[in-house]
Amino acid sequence: MPPQSQSADNAPGNDTAEQNAEALLRRQRIAAAYDPHLVAAAGERLAHQLSRAVAGMQKGDGLVLPGGRPEEQVARAASFLSRVPHKEASLVDRFEGLVSTAVSQGIALHHPHYVGHQVPPPVPLAGLFDAAGAVTNQGMAIYEMGPWAMAVEQAVVRQLAERLGWSPEQCNGLATHGGSLANLTALLTARNVAFPSAWQEGLPRTGPPPVVIAHADVHYCITRAAGILGLGTRQIVPAGLDHRRRLDPQHLDDTLSRCRRDGTPVIAVAACSGSTPVGAFDPLEAIADVCRRHEVWLHVDAAHGGGALMSRQHRHLLQGIDQADSVVLDAHKMLFMPALCTFLFYREKRHAYAAFQQNAPYLFSDTASDDTSCRLDFDGGLRTVECTKRATVFGLWGVWSLFGESLFADLVDEVFAKAQRLYAMLTEADDFEAIHEPQANILTFRFLHEKLRDAPPHVVSAFQQHLRTRVVESGTFYLVTTQLDGATVLRTALMNPLTSDADLATLITTLRDTARSIDVAQLPVLAGP
Amino acid sequence: MPPQSQSADNAPGNDTAEQNAEALLRRQRIAAAYDPHLVAAAGERLAHQLSRAVAGMQKGDGLVLPGGRPEEQVARAASFLSRVPHKEASLVDRFEGLVSTAVSQGIALHHPHYVGHQVPPPVPLAGLFDAAGAVTNQGMAIYEMGPWAMAVEQAVVRQLAERLGWSPEQCNGLATHGGSLANLTALLTARNVAFPSAWQEGLPRTGPPPVVIAHADVHYCITRAAGILGLGTRQIVPAGLDHRRRLDPQHLDDTLSRCRRDGTPVIAVAACSGSTPVGAFDPLEAIADVCRRHEVWLHVDAAHGGGALMSRQHRHLLQGIDQADSVVLDAHKMLFMPALCTFLFYREKRHAYAAFQQNAPYLFSDTASDDTSCRLDFDGGLRTVECTKRATVFGLWGVWSLFGESLFADLVDEVFAKAQRLYAMLTEADDFEAIHEPQANILTFRFLHEKLRDAPPHVVSAFQQHLRTRVVESGTFYLVTTQLDGATVLRTALMNPLTSDADLATLITTLRDTARSIDVAQLPVLAGP
Repeated sequence: MPPQSQSADNAPGNDTAEQNAEALLRRQRIAAAYDPHLVAAAGERLAHQLSRAVAGMQKGDGLVLPGGRPEEQVARAASFLSRVPHKEASLVDRFEGLVSTAVSQGIALHHPHYVGHQVPPPVPLAGLFDAAGAVTNQGMAIYEMGPWAMAVEQAVVRQLAERLGWSPEQCNGLATHGGSLANLTALLTARNVAFPSAWQEGLPRTGPPPVVIAHADVHYCITRAAGILGLGTRQIVPAGLDHRRRLDPQHLDDTLSRCRRDGTPVIAVAACSGSTPVGAFDPLEAIADVCRRHEVWLHVDAAHGGGALMSRQHRHLLQGIDQADSVVLDAHKMLFMPALCTFLFYREKRHAYAAFQQNAPYLFSDTASDDTSCRLDFDGGLRTVECTKRATVFGLWGVWSLFGESLFADLVDEVFAKAQRLYAMLTEADDFEAIHEPQANILTFRFLHEKLRDAPPHVVSAFQQHLRTRVVESGTFYLVTTQLDGATVLRTALMNPLTSDADLATLITTLRDTARSIDVAQLPVLAGP
Repeated sequence: MPPQSQSADNAPGNDTAEQNAEALLRRQRIAAAYDPHLVAAAGERLAHQLSRAVAGMQKGDGLVLPGGRPEEQVARAASFLSRVPHKEASLVDRFEGLVSTAVSQGIALHHPHYVGHQVPPPVPLAGLFDAAGAVTNQGMAIYEMGPWAMAVEQAVVRQLAERLGWSPEQCNGLATHGGSLANLTALLTARNVAFPSAWQEGLPRTGPPPVVIAHADVHYCITRAAGILGLGTRQIVPAGLDHRRRLDPQHLDDTLSRCRRDGTPVIAVAACSGSTPVGAFDPLEAIADVCRRHEVWLHVDAAHGGGALMSRQHRHLLQGIDQADSVVLDAHKMLFMPALCTFLFYREKRHAYAAFQQNAPYLFSDTASDDTSCRLDFDGGLRTVECTKRATVFGLWGVWSLFGESLFADLVDEVFAKAQRLYAMLTEADDFEAIHEPQANILTFRFLHEKLRDAPPHVVSAFQQHLRTRVVESGTFYLVTTQLDGATVLRTALMNPLTSDADLATLITTLRDTARSIDVAQLPVLAGP
């Protein structure tokens, strides 16, 4: 809409000429910011910036994690906000400069030496599909405010539900912003099913306080959920693990029997398909048997491991997941999507509406009073914490449509194989100790040379932590640590499918060389408090 | 990383030749999906598709809301997932086709006849900046996993905090996924501050149950928050409104006095800066006085109206917001960003850490043990429901840096002025009734011709609902309804800054012409249940 054409609209009787002139200028400035030509020109620059950035990272150019202290980086980011625009530089040049800064100052997930947290370098085109959702801004609280975004979401939900072993007609699924929010929503539902009056009247104030029984290595968001939902984080009862840190069904059975004897209500059992610290897959069939016998809600946090449903080779790890009451799956983990794109599934459709109930006449009544309840099934806001959402599933739908579902199997198979490869390499080395044989693409291990083998445990832990810090600060690799049974160990999630065996060999060499340069007697833990 | 170079890596001793060959093919397929050249080529197509789409919508081409029943659209979206890729069509051609489908089947927020919910047509370049965040996938749970994304977030937080009247050193702010999640987080914090043992031990089981006192027109997510947090939705006590549907400080004072007499603990008072139904701005200074006197947490849901802080002309509406304990502001409303980009602010920094406490050794310990607590201030996950987040603020930072903060003032001033203009036009018309004089860009009104003036209220309500349905189904305009004091009324949020006065005149004509074609005797409410 060219600004000239708007002057005709600008004829309210009580405005002054000066106000009219200012309003006209204002509309011109706004039209310039919304100029479609600018979208084309800036978009082209974006395409080439992103292409170059991805290519550079893939080749291993630069550091995995750039340096700079947080305060300094904040000051730098702030400087752009208050800078007077250079009139001589065109908008698209400045756009390109800002994009260039943004991509160069982040962590380089596409770098093959990125072997850190469970955040992947996404299939790049997914991010471009997401941009289509962002520019058109499909809100999705109700179907009307994002009809294609909801169609895409539900199409993918149905495909994934079938892989869970469920009929799309009987189950229900939704997309939401992250595994933490999805796990919270699932446990809220379980709480409301266990205590139907809790939503309106609050948690019961009499009788033994209810508990959630959770895999002892469960992600912190499950414990947080107990805090948020008013149960209290102490009401998380850890379920014992077997030697591979999988939930032990026998231990679970004992715990549930004890709860029954004590009269303690159990809101849910939370199991893992791909636990956070080591990527362990719980034996879901045996766990589901136990839960069914005790009539308890089974929630499976498959945020990490759910992607293995796409792999013929690995889907057996999720055997029994069809018997869960609720399942969480992060597409931004093992389906290699940009964050955040999480799915929450309920085996029984009706449970999807047990999480929330509310009156929002300005929102849902247009839909409710003009169509049947079938329409409400597509009003996403009734089932999610989010009111306005975003087209979270455009990327996954687009990449799936372009490359076919086999790409996801390839990706899962590739990174799972990499973990096996690294495990073999570490096992062969004298000076490393793999803590567990990986079930997924997460591996924990320690460096242990002669000087460390007889050192006290806290020194060995401090050494691993210091080793990690040294390597990460050098920018050569990005890996992390975790704590297992009180000991700090190195941890890697092999999230980059382009990390090669040669990169893994370099990782070992880098860790070894760095470790040998560390004086055990000078470790921070020994030097001070 | 060209696939050829990877064959050298492929020499594990125990694999068969067939497995090796399959692994090589797998890596080639993956490398093809991650090909940087594809990013450039597809990105160019995206740029031109989005440019054309925005241009077409701005010109008013096509319908505001395309037709199609949800089930049919889901089937259509699903058909792409299972389609065998045409080998003859190139990847970029197919990419372009998918993007084209996605943008053409959504609601056309950039269409000047979109005058519906509080979701704006975003400044288009914001969506492109977001793509830079998506392709590089900056996770942000800890600073390391998205250093620039966190720098950008905190730079914008500090700018906005100053506009709230706060010193960036003393307050705290964060970005999160949506107003509902931000309001939940704020009320969780208030609950934990009021009941410090609730996080670990659960809500108190003795004494009068605590309440939240909320603006009677508060967004449904506040009521939901009481349900989620274990308080119960019935523990929301509505605070009375004045004649402009603003929270009445005197009524609030009376309510708080009654609570004190009864010994009922009050977790928070929730006020609105831009209420959802009518966009009312509460008198915050007087409300803050009352809250201070009663020593109660003041939460302000400025999800909609917070953007007015950027406008010299309108910021007076938020006078007193500096005295709130917590404030929510959606950048994806009146800062014209793509969803979701919400800010939550705490006046006192320490409160930001009262929402959550947890042990997550694999995540936060790397940071905690290697640097001072100042580093933890930049580990976003400690203060948000999200663990992995996304670079939510890239768009706002980029647009602000490109166009300067004055663009946001322009946008707010423009759409607020539009609501005044529509109000004037409706007031002049014989057959419309404006329900309120707008404080913001939200306006409610009714069509009332001679046949309706003497009709019973439920008929008048049914008429408005039916009128809205007819207009929206025709695709000519998108507006909504709400209920005020039991009556259904038409409601518009003027979210498109390119909607002209001529468009508003056409809206009135369209509503009038459609209304005249409706036979009151044949309304659904009269025809049957």
